[in-house]
Amino acid sequence: MSREPIRRLNAADTDFEDRLGDLLAWESVADEAVEGAVAEILEAVRTRGDAAVIDYTNRFDRRQLQAGVDFQVSAEAMQAALQRISAAERGALETAADRVRAYHERQLQESWQYTEADGTVLGQKITPMERVGIYVPGGKASYPSSVLMNALPAKVAGVDSVIMVVPAPDGQLSDLVLAAAAIAGVDRVFSIGGAQAVAALAYGTETVPRVDKIVGPGNIFVASAKRAVFGRVAIDMIAGPSEILVICDGKTDPDWIAMDLLSQAEHDEQAQSILLSPDRGFLDAVQESLQKLVAELPRRDIAAASLAGRGALIEVESIGQAIEVSNRVAPEHLEVSVEDPERYLSQIRHAGAIFLGRHTAEALGDYCAGPNHVLPTSGTARFSSPLGVYDFQKRSSIIHCSPEGADQLGRVAGALARGEGLEAHARSAEYRVRK
Amino acid sequence: MSREPIRRLNAADTDFEDRLGDLLAWESVADEAVEGAVAEILEAVRTRGDAAVIDYTNRFDRRQLQAGVDFQVSAEAMQAALQRISAAERGALETAADRVRAYHERQLQESWQYTEADGTVLGQKITPMERVGIYVPGGKASYPSSVLMNALPAKVAGVDSVIMVVPAPDGQLSDLVLAAAAIAGVDRVFSIGGAQAVAALAYGTETVPRVDKIVGPGNIFVASAKRAVFGRVAIDMIAGPSEILVICDGKTDPDWIAMDLLSQAEHDEQAQSILLSPDRGFLDAVQESLQKLVAELPRRDIAAASLAGRGALIEVESIGQAIEVSNRVAPEHLEVSVEDPERYLSQIRHAGAIFLGRHTAEALGDYCAGPNHVLPTSGTARFSSPLGVYDFQKRSSIIHCSPEGADQLGRVAGALARGEGLEAHARSAEYRVRK
Repeated sequence: MSREPIRRLNAADTDFEDRLGDLLAWESVADEAVEGAVAEILEAVRTRGDAAVIDYTNRFDRRQLQAGVDFQVSAEAMQAALQRISAAERGALETAADRVRAYHERQLQESWQYTEADGTVLGQKITPMERVGIYVPGGKASYPSSVLMNALPAKVAGVDSVIMVVPAPDGQLSDLVLAAAAIAGVDRVFSIGGAQAVAALAYGTETVPRVDKIVGPGNIFVASAKRAVFGRVAIDMIAGPSEILVICDGKTDPDWIAMDLLSQAEHDEQAQSILLSPDRGFLDAVQESLQKLVAELPRRDIAAASLAGRGALIEVESIGQAIEVSNRVAPEHLEVSVEDPERYLSQIRHAGAIFLGRHTAEALGDYCAGPNHVLPTSGTARFSSPLGVYDFQKRSSIIHCSPEGADQLGRVAGALARGEGLEAHARSAEYRVRK
Repeated sequence: MSREPIRRLNAADTDFEDRLGDLLAWESVADEAVEGAVAEILEAVRTRGDAAVIDYTNRFDRRQLQAGVDFQVSAEAMQAALQRISAAERGALETAADRVRAYHERQLQESWQYTEADGTVLGQKITPMERVGIYVPGGKASYPSSVLMNALPAKVAGVDSVIMVVPAPDGQLSDLVLAAAAIAGVDRVFSIGGAQAVAALAYGTETVPRVDKIVGPGNIFVASAKRAVFGRVAIDMIAGPSEILVICDGKTDPDWIAMDLLSQAEHDEQAQSILLSPDRGFLDAVQESLQKLVAELPRRDIAAASLAGRGALIEVESIGQAIEVSNRVAPEHLEVSVEDPERYLSQIRHAGAIFLGRHTAEALGDYCAGPNHVLPTSGTARFSSPLGVYDFQKRSSIIHCSPEGADQLGRVAGALARGEGLEAHARSAEYRVRK
């Protein structure tokens, strides 16, 4: 690990590719002890239902639950939390929810169909999922913004029932989290967490309805449980540490850019903040700003460790080269803090969310700009997308052959089926061919 | 297991729900021995590249490969295969490819953006993946239709490079498979299979480029390897046995319906064929047809075992009740063989593909109707979709705040970030708030 406050690299160096590879290296460690414990919890909940959920919850979260009803959070409790938070907090949550809802409504997909010349109809029918589970971490990492970002796309998609689980260690629940659930229109809340909550959602219990998809972040037990139930239910991607990559032409206030880097670094020590600029003097200035500003932060130890361990200031030849490096990184968050940033958009190939212009702090995207803050990490933006309405809708193909269409297609299908040695396929198609 | 040629159930029976549950029960068995072998293969290919791919391929497929070039299939070899197949086969493949391409072009998603009153721009950018791997089984189960169905959506999506792997046991490759690859525009072909081929695609070797997503069916080693590399690359769903559920009002020729059921049953002994009808006499007639027609099939033993083990003829009260049962099953293929089938479409909630009307044999969808034949199995149509162009495109959010927008949003984000204890987030947003 670097002893410097932050690593300095130059894209012109001959070993740059290797050093970039080392910088990005991050592998979620599979832990056999965790997997074994999770397998046991999953099996217990699958076979014993509520009783097992209660046992584990009492043990891990220091609760005194006796029956399923004890871990249900009523609609009244959610409304009471909404009343208890300050007017400013409520106003901010409602503004954020309105903006997130409005953006996500643009993602709604419509069913379509078309009729061919011979009367055959082909189409695609869009249907929302019936029930979706949202995992919300408890304790210190319980973020009301995550409740909005996970629940609202499901609600916009038209999911019948959005079910939230959130652990309540020592019986404590966050008012902000419950208030966010109320604002987002979450249908049911259970105060359970860990692998036992994932199991309850995947298999169903006397109290918790079985869901079709489980989304939301969690610790290694939650991630391991989600991976184990994948296939039985759908899951979102397993998230790695948060990352930001900033491209700057050197003309943005270095304090602004430094604070943008720090806003990732304060998440946790594994978080990654990278700045690319063709202006060496600007990199120096940002480095100075980082040292000055990190000292003022409540989470300065975490942020400093993140910068030293996983951060980097990288000198590049041009903005074009910076974008090439960025495409190689496929960052979760990409800030393009340059003049006229739109002109680079067509060159940007892989990024979870793209923040254009000097005024667009990444933090706005975390809370209230509108797009989702659940984004692909660790280079998975190469093949995955932000959480969205499309994650809660599914498609069914529609085929309605006219007699004429069945006649024509039956001949083609018959030939191909025989080529594959599937005689019943051929005959089934050919029954509809005109003699 | 039933000793009858096919199980008869009645939805009015009090134990119907339990019996339906038993009928549908199917769990992909995790096999620790397979998982261990696969983990070893993955690690060998990750660390030793081509050399390991060659070792395993020589051993499992009885090849005499010496270098990476030996398992490359040239464009000339693909064109030669296209010349060797019959004109009728080539015509059928080209017709099927044209229709599949035309349908999938309707699935292309467009980037969009909108500008808010204060000048802030929000949007969603669509980008194809760079490289995609398609697994095609070898030997007897090598189906040219699968090549078209997996490769064409990727090509329509605009993927730069579609890479196919197909094992060549004893050096044998199917001309139809290579011809289908040529017609679909597959960019590169490697004659390797098994977990070693999945590993080569996931990690890359000297010869095989690393891909972003791996799709296509395979045996338990392939499925286990795909599951193991999930997260590092994207994968499609792990498929279970094929299924059909037919709803018929009793007015379609019983031989047609029997052959539709047999076209699933001939796939393998685990395949599932279910017929629902309110007309008991029709169920009797189909049962007779099944017994008559199965005897004529080359794959009669497989089909008979499938019908006896996993098939069912179910009497229902009405077409409406049949659709309720179907929604509970969430079948891969649903045939609605009734008068005026469109009127039931809005009630159908979960199905991979819906075949409407008496002339629409499910087999048409397997080959040439246009929609994809890679469909969610084992009830996963509750939460997943047919393979499509959307599986090879991904989305990036776009946010470009105007100074006015940054001022307004910065206040909201600042309030929410402080509520979550994230001071650097708050300051980063508030730098852009007007003093």
